[in-house]
Amino acid sequence: MELTVYLAGQIHDDWRNELKEKARQKDLPLHFVGPQENHERSDNIGEDILGEQPNSIHRDDAASSINNFRTEVLLQKSDAVIALFGEKYKQWNTAMDASAAIQLNKPLILIRPESLVHPLKELSNQANVTVESMDQALEVLAYIYE
Amino acid sequence: MELTVYLAGQIHDDWRNELKEKARQKDLPLHFVGPQENHERSDNIGEDILGEQPNSIHRDDAASSINNFRTEVLLQKSDAVIALFGEKYKQWNTAMDASAAIQLNKPLILIRPESLVHPLKELSNQANVTVESMDQALEVLAYIYE
Amino acid sequence: MELTVYLAGQIHDDWRNELKEKARQKDLPLHFVGPQENHERSDNIGEDILGEQPNSIHRDDAASSINNFRTEVLLQKSDAVIALFGEKYKQWNTAMDASAAIQLNKPLILIRPESLVHPLKELSNQANVTVESMDQALEVLAYIYE
Amino acid sequence: MELTVYLAGQIHDDWRNELKEKARQKDLPLHFVGPQENHERSDNIGEDILGEQPNSIHRDDAASSINNFRTEVLLQKSDAVIALFGEKYKQWNTAMDASAAIQLNKPLILIRPESLVHPLKELSNQANVTVESMDQALEVLAYIYE
Amino acid sequence: MELTVYLAGQIHDDWRNELKEKARQKDLPLHFVGPQENHERSDNIGEDILGEQPNSIHRDDAASSINNFRTEVLLQKSDAVIALFGEKYKQWNTAMDASAAIQLNKPLILIRPESLVHPLKELSNQANVTVESMDQALEVLAYIYE
Amino acid sequence: MELTVYLAGQIHDDWRNELKEKARQKDLPLHFVGPQENHERSDNIGEDILGEQPNSIHRDDAASSINNFRTEVLLQKSDAVIALFGEKYKQWNTAMDASAAIQLNKPLILIRPESLVHPLKELSNQANVTVESMDQALEVLAYIYE
Amino acid sequence: MELTVYLAGQIHDDWRNELKEKARQKDLPLHFVGPQENHERSDNIGEDILGEQPNSIHRDDAASSINNFRTEVLLQKSDAVIALFGEKYKQWNTAMDASAAIQLNKPLILIRPESLVHPLKELSNQANVTVESMDQALEVLAYIYE
Amino acid sequence: MELTVYLAGQIHDDWRNELKEKARQKDLPLHFVGPQENHERSDNIGEDILGEQPNSIHRDDAASSINNFRTEVLLQKSDAVIALFGEKYKQWNTAMDASAAIQLNKPLILIRPESLVHPLKELSNQANVTVESMDQALEVLAYIYE
Repeated sequence: MELTVYLAGQIHDDWRNELKEKARQKDLPLHFVGPQENHERSDNIGEDILGEQPNSIHRDDAASSINNFRTEVLLQKSDAVIALFGEKYKQWNTAMDASAAIQLNKPLILIRPESLVHPLKELSNQANVTVESMDQALEVLAYIYE
Repeated sequence: MELTVYLAGQIHDDWRNELKEKARQKDLPLHFVGPQENHERSDNIGEDILGEQPNSIHRDDAASSINNFRTEVLLQKSDAVIALFGEKYKQWNTAMDASAAIQLNKPLILIRPESLVHPLKELSNQANVTVESMDQALEVLAYIYE
Repeated sequence: MELTVYLAGQIHDDWRNELKEKARQKDLPLHFVGPQENHERSDNIGEDILGEQPNSIHRDDAASSINNFRTEVLLQKSDAVIALFGEKYKQWNTAMDASAAIQLNKPLILIRPESLVHPLKELSNQANVTVESMDQALEVLAYIYE
Repeated sequence: MELTVYLAGQIHDDWRNELKEKARQKDLPLHFVGPQENHERSDNIGEDILGEQPNSIHRDDAASSINNFRTEVLLQKSDAVIALFGEKYKQWNTAMDASAAIQLNKPLILIRPESLVHPLKELSNQANVTVESMDQALEVLAYIYE
Repeated sequence: MELTVYLAGQIHDDWRNELKEKARQKDLPLHFVGPQENHERSDNIGEDILGEQPNSIHRDDAASSINNFRTEVLLQKSDAVIALFGEKYKQWNTAMDASAAIQLNKPLILIRPESLVHPLKELSNQANVTVESMDQALEVLAYIYE
Repeated sequence: MELTVYLAGQIHDDWRNELKEKARQKDLPLHFVGPQENHERSDNIGEDILGEQPNSIHRDDAASSINNFRTEVLLQKSDAVIALFGEKYKQWNTAMDASAAIQLNKPLILIRPESLVHPLKELSNQANVTVESMDQALEVLAYIYE
Repeated sequence: MELTVYLAGQIHDDWRNELKEKARQKDLPLHFVGPQENHERSDNIGEDILGEQPNSIHRDDAASSINNFRTEVLLQKSDAVIALFGEKYKQWNTAMDASAAIQLNKPLILIRPESLVHPLKELSNQANVTVESMDQALEVLAYIYE
Repeated sequence: MELTVYLAGQIHDDWRNELKEKARQKDLPLHFVGPQENHERSDNIGEDILGEQPNSIHRDDAASSINNFRTEVLLQKSDAVIALFGEKYKQWNTAMDASAAIQLNKPLILIRPESLVHPLKELSNQANVTVESMDQALEVLAYIYE
């Protein structure tokens, strides 16, 4: 049974490829999807497609409408969601995607460092499983196939 | 027609009472609900009710389970949601409540300072209305009664 | 049993007051809600609350976000919807509100002149009842209380 | 990951084939569905199958019931919806299909010329993305696969 | 706690008034709603409101659209449904209303004579409770208040 | 695009095989499912699996629970539903399946002879399309592929 | 803001009255509903209303259909659910009601003695809050009004 | 038509393999999924992945979060559910999974020995079919393919 997993979280480092590589090594029948990981492309996508916007507010709004379209299409195709929080950045769309996953009945694994236990406590309490590392998240996914 | 409005957001200052007072002055038939605003009580509620927990992780988990219970009861009783983001704090449960409101078809007003336009762009794009001040949020609510 | 009825349709003439007056004469326990009927206010509401926008596209977008917020709050409070199409104007938000009502299981009465039978045939086929006049629409509502 | 996209909009010119051809050139794994594009067949389908109807109102009603059946089957099979508005025609079933897509959680791209910004502002505000050309709509779809 | 109960079933005799009278005698806080009970009015309502129709098929279609509108409004306001089948008539809209109640999560009491056990077995199996008389149905409703 | 169609209706003659044969001749990519068509087996299935029941009421209840299980599994796998009413029999589970299809958003084609127009008018008004013959129903399905 | 709370759990002792009395002492605007607490009446209600059944299996089935009808009506009227597990009895309908509450988005408080931590761990993990005493459950409800 | 069936129930003996073997012998196109059947692994999975927990309560909570994640992923992929109750153990998560299946519209077969008729009567009344043996459950599944 193949499963599709949406990888929510920041796009400032290479964590998704690292996680995909680990999954490949475990030979799990998982298919991963997620947001645009090229940060600059993600920020520019509105003007790239729609042309120059009058100011930075509308530039951000144009980009986010296309990023949200992508997320909504892929989230609805997913069987489970992993949301990763790192120590940097505000990561509010990670929180937004995680909460959307909960409301849409997409089982959710939250990855967060111990330093974020307190500010993420309400979200952690609603997630199905909360772990501290990608390895643990993959073990949870692997457990489905045992 | 009375409406119930859930006030999501940080609980570090007195913004909810300020907003309620402004609504009273406008004589709007609005009933406001929201999270526990006493920060210490909110953090301690788990141990206050369930007794001492083995460590701070489980203390946070106990508190958040009761805070989430309160939020879920009140959010479901609400006709609309205001989510306010300030410049401080991570405010991830504000993002979580805002996203839950969107998925539950509760019309959402987002209040955020101009400095947060970029990190909140995806959430702003999904909210019904995004404003910068409580006065503007109240004007949006008042507009329903015009 | 009181019922709340949302009145979707153009806001260029006084049809809602006419319909409310007819309902009062029939002494029906109906409560009517609907969009902002002051056309200028409806078009300006974005800039009235959010301040000047960079161009007319964003001025329209700001206004529509607040008009949609109002519609969503009131539509969800309604037990039934009347959508009136006249011979002038494009009236696409009337079509949008009518279709939203159908999907939200809000029973829908469509009012349209005979001249619009052909272009409205798909919407008419999905509405619960299609009539040609406000008097007929009121008779349908009155029939609930017979 | 293959995606099925419903193409809502008028059926008076060949825009769907043009869009399909552009998608083929970009080699995107998209499968397009949509309404009957032969206008005469679409208007006659009621009498073609059910036989002569007593007048043009019932002829239209018979045709629309079969067109709506087709739309409902295909819309539910779709992962996303494109709704195109041109400058001519009333296009109310385009508005109806777009609004149904929104309520059914089918991510929606709206294509409309700049001349229609004002009358389509409420629908545009609810769509995920609004663009002005087919090329832009395809770029949005292509962005999912980047 | 007041409850609203929709009374689905044929409209050829006075069973609804009999049942309401029995409920009044038991002093139960029940509010009953249901279809138009004047059979002639129910059959004519289409032409009464919309004017003469081209033939009996369209006369029936016009009447049923208004009867269905009434049923949908009232069914959605109800907390429970009673569906009564008698030995005469085809009563297909009773079956339709009963099935709609099941799908809409409206708890359903089925009343049917012993002679109809076999043809109603699938519907009976889906109803919450099946009884043979109005007195038994009222006892089931009264049991809620014990 | 393959579609699965549930064939609701009486099981006293061979209409399903006739319809499947016609579909095969038209070379339509349709997959048909439906209830147990061996009438005796359908009536006996409760006792066949669960053993002898105390009386005919419970014998019917045992059979209907298994028939309903089958219907629910297959209806949920279907993209559209055809419900055929003939002139004989009460056919209440056909009405029940048709109404369930409507509530579950499964597009519905109703087949009924002209003699049943009046008693089926409310169900016909809720169906997507109403026709009088299997050939017409197949033409409606074929129209999806034009 | 008044809230209605469904009290799921065994009916062998007087815990509901004890809990109601405690709520009265705290002067909380709570309205409690729940199953029939007279155990004998609950077991006999099938035969009390429907008459003698052929054997104990069908006697139980008749009773449970009426008990489930009552539960479904009241659960849907509730804003929150308390499910209490004691050390005796199998209490499977308590588990069933608790799980139904979770799926219906009714916020759930689970009360269970420490001795049942292990067998109830999956249910506890899905409940919003798990406590060990009625006093703690009431404190959670009271917290909504702080 | 392949079907996926979730096997809820205790994990203390080998009943799932027995049932799968019987299905293989009947050559039914069924795919079975279910919980982790290695009891020790199921109880330890929390600490196996998340590391040592402060006490047995939190050890159980950690394990159950991962077991629930697995169940939710697999239950949502299933077309039907079998829930088996044996005479030993409390089996509350079997009751929980069975009730979740009912609320999620997953057709449910309940297997229970005659000795458990009384305590399981409310759950049995809500299940689609209740049988006493695995052979009977398989006959119900096989009946779909007749």
